[in-house]
Amino acid sequence: MISPNQPLNLPQGFRAHIANIGIKDATEDFAVIASQVPCRSVAMFTRSLFAGPSVLLSRRNAEANNLQAVVVVSKNANVATGAEGLANAEELCRGVALAVGCAESEVLVTSTGVIGRQYPMDRIRSHLSHLEQVALDDRTASPASSRAFDSTDAVAIASAMMTTDTHPKTACATLPTRRSDGTVGMATVVGMAKGVGMIEPDMATMLSFVFTDAELPTEALERVFRNSVERSFNSLSVDTDTSTSDTAAILANGLAGSVNESEFAAALSKVCTELTRQLARDGEGATTLLLVQVQQARDESQAKRVAKSILNSPLVKTAVHGADPNWGRVAMAIGKCSEDTDIDQTKVVIRFGESEVYPRSVGDAELTEMEHYLAGDEVVISVDLGVNLDVDAASWTVYGCDLSDGYVRINADYTT
Amino acid sequence: MISPNQPLNLPQGFRAHIANIGIKDATEDFAVIASQVPCRSVAMFTRSLFAGPSVLLSRRNAEANNLQAVVVVSKNANVATGAEGLANAEELCRGVALAVGCAESEVLVTSTGVIGRQYPMDRIRSHLSHLEQVALDDRTASPASSRAFDSTDAVAIASAMMTTDTHPKTACATLPTRRSDGTVGMATVVGMAKGVGMIEPDMATMLSFVFTDAELPTEALERVFRNSVERSFNSLSVDTDTSTSDTAAILANGLAGSVNESEFAAALSKVCTELTRQLARDGEGATTLLLVQVQQARDESQAKRVAKSILNSPLVKTAVHGADPNWGRVAMAIGKCSEDTDIDQTKVVIRFGESEVYPRSVGDAELTEMEHYLAGDEVVISVDLGVNLDVDAASWTVYGCDLSDGYVRINADYTT
Repeated sequence: MISPNQPLNLPQGFRAHIANIGIKDATEDFAVIASQVPCRSVAMFTRSLFAGPSVLLSRRNAEANNLQAVVVVSKNANVATGAEGLANAEELCRGVALAVGCAESEVLVTSTGVIGRQYPMDRIRSHLSHLEQVALDDRTASPASSRAFDSTDAVAIASAMMTTDTHPKTACATLPTRRSDGTVGMATVVGMAKGVGMIEPDMATMLSFVFTDAELPTEALERVFRNSVERSFNSLSVDTDTSTSDTAAILANGLAGSVNESEFAAALSKVCTELTRQLARDGEGATTLLLVQVQQARDESQAKRVAKSILNSPLVKTAVHGADPNWGRVAMAIGKCSEDTDIDQTKVVIRFGESEVYPRSVGDAELTEMEHYLAGDEVVISVDLGVNLDVDAASWTVYGCDLSDGYVRINADYTT
Repeated sequence: MISPNQPLNLPQGFRAHIANIGIKDATEDFAVIASQVPCRSVAMFTRSLFAGPSVLLSRRNAEANNLQAVVVVSKNANVATGAEGLANAEELCRGVALAVGCAESEVLVTSTGVIGRQYPMDRIRSHLSHLEQVALDDRTASPASSRAFDSTDAVAIASAMMTTDTHPKTACATLPTRRSDGTVGMATVVGMAKGVGMIEPDMATMLSFVFTDAELPTEALERVFRNSVERSFNSLSVDTDTSTSDTAAILANGLAGSVNESEFAAALSKVCTELTRQLARDGEGATTLLLVQVQQARDESQAKRVAKSILNSPLVKTAVHGADPNWGRVAMAIGKCSEDTDIDQTKVVIRFGESEVYPRSVGDAELTEMEHYLAGDEVVISVDLGVNLDVDAASWTVYGCDLSDGYVRINADYTT
């Protein structure tokens, strides 16, 4: 059902414009995705105190839940750029609204890349005026249907969003719709995301967008999206560093007809989880996708806190990188959640994959087997906390990766 | 006044026994430091939920503030070892008390090394009975003065404590004393510490001991020690991972006479800060000592939280490693303290050394200068938060190091 990085079209009614406008180099760095009809929308943003003008502006625009277009500028985050940076973001927003033919307040402005540098506004300005001209010349359709919006290729959009990502991330799911005439159709949920470093999203991951032609009420869309983001992008960490630009948004144009909320939730969850796994696996320098599952917690927030403590431990991450079954480091990482005094070390169980490593002691032959397991490209560490022994008690899964010398080299050699 | 790693004697009245008993290899791995007379003492321990038997036992023994001896076993932490591990720690404590000639409750038991492995008790047992025999044979003195306690070499003790440390850490300070006969003498404060990975102490660093012949009341000793630990070892982070074995203790035998509390605080602070700097500089894989100073905070706790966020950011640490003046990452790390909503990004000032990099924009020539500065072996990042503009407002300094591929290699290749 989900086939990452295969050719993938946007849902019906969504069109895109993708270009290189020379933000940093000759790769694509500018994308506008627009719906040809009004949408319902939900967006979530970083809680960073150094959030940039794009986030400040978009937070305001997203409030009315009727975004119709998303613009992405990659290779420059437009963060810590002061009043000039805010004016530039507003000018960008205005130009995109004109090209799309929607209100400024219906545009989500997003940006990702280096912090502390102004946009090359001459290039952005000249490109925007070209876009507006095409829209004006093209009288046969609404601006968002003009020749400028000539792409429906989700992979190409995901590619234009990339900074240090090694490949584009997309995911897709479908679900049945019920039309007003009683016939049954199909809705599509298409997601795309970028971000492999400075990743411990606080409200959303770096940039992730979901487009769908399903129709459902704004309140349902919001409930389902927030829940899905919490269990996917907000459960992802590459390096504990929270971006200044994190934005996640969903736009639903309803063209395929109305859907059942729980079927939609399942489809959306598949898309967001698949994107999260792709982001984690492509974490800077990563060689292994690392999942940490914590069960038997007091509540979900405890399960997530302990899981994150393990996932974010440099010593656990380097042990996974070295395929070293050093479960003592997992015990240490649980131990440092020192506020959770209801965790009793004698009741905890730690497993690598299916194999218990604590408290049961492990023989040498088994250790060798575990080294093989840890050398694989996906590793699961699971922990029973023993705080609440109910089988259905609170659990949480988080997504990340190993820590390699590659991560250090990428980030030590990255030049401002 | 402080000369690290120069020959350094323990203060008067303290003697040590140092040996290799084959815990892991042929290097020294066993040390007992004892006072020949009763002491006042204060000890602080990790808050890890996976604290080992040594910490559990020592926490109890330390309560009466009259520790007379410290035993250190290195290369095996005796953590996550269950009931057998606790029985082994108690047997070790008993044997050391007999050899020293003090009560079991006057012994601080500490241990550091791999987690999840039992002590080689046959070797420990045989060495303890040898120690007791020497003490018994040696009728001319108290056990702690016997031939077994033949060393006063602080550097040798610090060496016996090491695991992945590349060199022993010691520090020393002196201060005047006032004897009861009115004459003025000199007291000595000698500290030693180990621990360069799994270092973000929650109450104290890995293992750090201070011995002094100064005399001061227990309450004053406790006040001064806790304050000093808070600003030194508890302000140190190599990798955000909190050890299961952290212990810091001070033993004061009073032989040099009574001292002024604030003079003692100054001397102790010098010793603890110097040890902290040595630990940070020897952080696993480190090439640069990194100090982060935060000023103009709402309170000390905010200053410390923001400083730690910067110090612990993998992206800041790799930028320092790569000598890249990427101050945007410092802004990001401040930004992720998202609970501190009184921090306003337009009022923040960021400096590398003496040079302001934000909000002032920096020219290319200056950038090159900064690269030279960041390539040095000590880097200071300082931040004015602008929350409280009072010059004397809350500030805090934290100590750490860069993140190098060396850190990854050490911890990926370390075999359990």
